[in-house]
Amino acid sequence: MVERRKPIPINKAVEMVMNYRLKGQKEIISIHESDHRRLAEPIIAKNNVPSFDKSPYDGFALRSIDTDKASTNNPMEFEVVEHIGAGQVPTKTLGKGQATRIMTGAKIPDGADCIAMFEICKSYERNNNPFMSIKRKMNKDQNIIKEGSEVLEGKVLIEEGTIINPGVKALLATFGYNQVEVAKKPIVGIIATGTELLEVDEDLKPGKIRNSNAYMIASQINKAGGISKYYGKLADEFDTSYEAMKKALDEVDILITTGGVSVGDFDLMPAIYEKLKAEVLFNKVAMRPGSVTTVAVIEDKILFGLSGNPSACYVGFELFTRPIIQHYLYNKKPYLKRIKAILADGFPKPNPFTRFVRSYITYDNASVYVHLAGMDKSNVVTSLANSTCLMVLPGGTRGFKAGDEVEALLLDDMYGQSDF
Amino acid sequence: MVERRKPIPINKAVEMVMNYRLKGQKEIISIHESDHRRLAEPIIAKNNVPSFDKSPYDGFALRSIDTDKASTNNPMEFEVVEHIGAGQVPTKTLGKGQATRIMTGAKIPDGADCIAMFEICKSYERNNNPFMSIKRKMNKDQNIIKEGSEVLEGKVLIEEGTIINPGVKALLATFGYNQVEVAKKPIVGIIATGTELLEVDEDLKPGKIRNSNAYMIASQINKAGGISKYYGKLADEFDTSYEAMKKALDEVDILITTGGVSVGDFDLMPAIYEKLKAEVLFNKVAMRPGSVTTVAVIEDKILFGLSGNPSACYVGFELFTRPIIQHYLYNKKPYLKRIKAILADGFPKPNPFTRFVRSYITYDNASVYVHLAGMDKSNVVTSLANSTCLMVLPGGTRGFKAGDEVEALLLDDMYGQSDF
Repeated sequence: MVERRKPIPINKAVEMVMNYRLKGQKEIISIHESDHRRLAEPIIAKNNVPSFDKSPYDGFALRSIDTDKASTNNPMEFEVVEHIGAGQVPTKTLGKGQATRIMTGAKIPDGADCIAMFEICKSYERNNNPFMSIKRKMNKDQNIIKEGSEVLEGKVLIEEGTIINPGVKALLATFGYNQVEVAKKPIVGIIATGTELLEVDEDLKPGKIRNSNAYMIASQINKAGGISKYYGKLADEFDTSYEAMKKALDEVDILITTGGVSVGDFDLMPAIYEKLKAEVLFNKVAMRPGSVTTVAVIEDKILFGLSGNPSACYVGFELFTRPIIQHYLYNKKPYLKRIKAILADGFPKPNPFTRFVRSYITYDNASVYVHLAGMDKSNVVTSLANSTCLMVLPGGTRGFKAGDEVEALLLDDMYGQSDF
Repeated sequence: MVERRKPIPINKAVEMVMNYRLKGQKEIISIHESDHRRLAEPIIAKNNVPSFDKSPYDGFALRSIDTDKASTNNPMEFEVVEHIGAGQVPTKTLGKGQATRIMTGAKIPDGADCIAMFEICKSYERNNNPFMSIKRKMNKDQNIIKEGSEVLEGKVLIEEGTIINPGVKALLATFGYNQVEVAKKPIVGIIATGTELLEVDEDLKPGKIRNSNAYMIASQINKAGGISKYYGKLADEFDTSYEAMKKALDEVDILITTGGVSVGDFDLMPAIYEKLKAEVLFNKVAMRPGSVTTVAVIEDKILFGLSGNPSACYVGFELFTRPIIQHYLYNKKPYLKRIKAILADGFPKPNPFTRFVRSYITYDNASVYVHLAGMDKSNVVTSLANSTCLMVLPGGTRGFKAGDEVEALLLDDMYGQSDF
């Protein structure tokens, strides 16, 4: 009855899953709804920035030629013909001996070719008419921010797949992206299996536990940028489970089941995969937790059979499902960001398999430390809640001691990396 | 015309704003809608974990006393009276010489006081009845996970103010929080001022730029956990601006304006604050960018007058508005997480004021590096989009060189810190 399974290396497993990645659909939405979505088109500069020659200062726009003879002993006088603020448009072309009072950001009037800062000029009135004088020679183009000097029209500013953060949204607004093309969110179905499961609103009964995996995964899906669709929990019965999965597969882009993937007497998934004619990519991975993670494909759908154990379920999602969702969303860096960090706590027990340990990061004097989130038994229940990374401990014959450099996968980073 | 303002230190400014912090309202929502919200109640263990004595292994539940004489040469035989999976409840109380076949996670039957792993037992049938035998002495409580051994009922597991991440959501589900009390999101109004502003769907015109600040701030508000409400852009006209702000103040918890806070000829905010009878806490801060940031209070509303310059606007929000929103949401760590990092690029020009520079973090061999996001001119436009932190460069007479240790405020961290 107990089937023998050969575990495959974790890197190989990730590679096999990613061979079945699909790019998602695009949809056009309002800029107002675009926070935290991922671009399905690059942001391109639709105009020069600035889009007109502008002033960096409060001051006076002049013709530099008129200042040629200006010096401390020889102030040059100008008639101030106009006074413009930012957003006001100069209407007068400057002639010889004329100046325009101008504010920061305003457009340079025709005829002018330099800006003299307000502070180096003298302003006064004569016969109720405004005048100014200057004691310095100015050069052509002095203090003028030229059209296109920051960005030229047509330049690609932000790549597709980038998440829309406040700075990206500012760019969308700057270049008139009132509508923006974003990646459509994949619909990810969740089915929890296990006769021992109660729903969250049910009272505890002897021998039963509440279904927490489905809620946790729904949250992981949302965080990864998908839309979760919960199909409920099922008892370990073949026909009901098969029918529920068949129905769900018609409605989702990706289907996740939890539980039923072990080799115990009551674990039905292998038989269900067979009846669904799903191609099982692997059903055992050389890692802890999550070794019984199963991934299967049916036509263009991917089916993730995650463990019923909460930690294994969590890790299986982050390692295998999340990159598939990220790729679907056009992210060119679909994998969790992997950094090096100094192990803060000892981990003396060796394990032949690579372990992904619930952990959190701290910073001290420009160094990164990684701590176990569930050091003592009383923290086991809350350790997932307190985790900000998964520490990666390679399998082998030795343990790890405080001060060792180890790798950690950051769970809250939104940018990711291009290779696992 | 030009008013003299005395800049106050940045720490003092943050402290003055936080004196006017308000805790928000609570609301009860479904667990399904709770992702990324902040708890307004602690999560308390509503039952023991596990809630019954359970088995860690597949195996047989026995009475240890019946194995007293078991040894390699003297196997003890047991009648298997029942076979239970996880979630199935044992119905038979074990008598002398009886065993129950049990699966991982299942409840220990009455009468049993130990679990023998499947691998160390022998199973067989006689006369179509199941039997097992064991060659080892077992002890009382051996391999039994006792009720409450992980968490005792009543324990506070997660503090109020914590953000609901996938692990926290799993805890909510585990303890039957079908409904959860979360902090109500504050409504944050946005008014952009400036005659030079065009709306995002308008074509560029000479002398005009598109309003990007309002969109950027809406995104910052969403990211910080608030609800943004955009009141549109206004020309620099006193009456219209005053009326719009008065109306908005009746409808929001916090009001942000952008622009109009400089001391230029067209900047109206000071006069509007006066007519609104708002108490101005400060209108100049010893920092770059954002020195003209103004904060005022009217009854229980806080009014943030941010600069019209995009970088200054962004920084002003993160330093002053974000902590107010975070506190409103019960977060006990309302400030941006501040870490130390190694400066990757030189910054030779000194500045008398503390600077908050758009930057991003990289990791190398367990060290953290901070890089300028807009090193060359062509990156200025995209630098906010590429920033993941604000580098803090203290004011003074010297510049900074690559390799110096500096501080950085992390923009994407969701946990924060308790002091600025």
